[in-house]
Amino acid sequence: MATHTNACKSAQFRPIGVIRSALKSRGKAPKQGPEGAPDAWLEVQAFAAQALDGLRPGDHIIVLTWFHRARRDVLKVHPRSDPRRQLTGVFATRSPDRPNPVGLHPVTVRRVVKNRLRIGPIEAIDGTPVIDIKPVLPCHPDF
Amino acid sequence: MATHTNACKSAQFRPIGVIRSALKSRGKAPKQGPEGAPDAWLEVQAFAAQALDGLRPGDHIIVLTWFHRARRDVLKVHPRSDPRRQLTGVFATRSPDRPNPVGLHPVTVRRVVKNRLRIGPIEAIDGTPVIDIKPVLPCHPDF
Repeated sequence: MATHTNACKSAQFRPIGVIRSALKSRGKAPKQGPEGAPDAWLEVQAFAAQALDGLRPGDHIIVLTWFHRARRDVLKVHPRSDPRRQLTGVFATRSPDRPNPVGLHPVTVRRVVKNRLRIGPIEAIDGTPVIDIKPVLPCHPDF
Repeated sequence: MATHTNACKSAQFRPIGVIRSALKSRGKAPKQGPEGAPDAWLEVQAFAAQALDGLRPGDHIIVLTWFHRARRDVLKVHPRSDPRRQLTGVFATRSPDRPNPVGLHPVTVRRVVKNRLRIGPIEAIDGTPVIDIKPVLPCHPDF
């Protein structure tokens, strides 16, 4: 049983890009994109630029980021930072503080300019590393 | 401009769990969960078990995995492995082969048994490391 788990004690990712946003701090960012977040630029690193081929304005995509300012030792939070709400496991919330602080951002592609995508709305702050970009699938449009 | 990018040349994640599935190889796995994939167990590591608190049967969640058998040097593919389809950047496809091979699996929670979730349908193969678990949000039910 344990062999598979032990085969991957940790893994490393290399950012494929970075968010360039007018949002400069966590305190000023809305909790989710649709809650008033701005559009931003996603700058893709040169090594991965070819992988953008096929993305077009109007596409619905999912951007995965690494919340580099998050705490990784938090397992329970008050949802939406509301102390009146019961402490809840972070896997049942979208708290950025979690063991692997990956952000999941559904956004629309506004423009494609060489290795840069204008996307939004997105609540990730300026300088947030980007891990991956995925299209939303017609076969399960809910994700 | 480059300071933020350089601040995170790479980052490490620690798996929070592992998939236990009857699917044992990539070749036998459907390309997406709704295409006939089975249910599977998601075993959460002891260190992260508290973070499950609040998840219940019937919940719609997103499981993020690490495709440990994927190739990370692939930037373009024929979508759905169909050679008749034009070579396309991996960020415009859901190919498991990509620079950071993160899998995004929308699933339903069937059962919760201590630190194990029965989930499905899910196309990830046995032994796939799990990076994160997130609830689907009412404020953007599309993701």
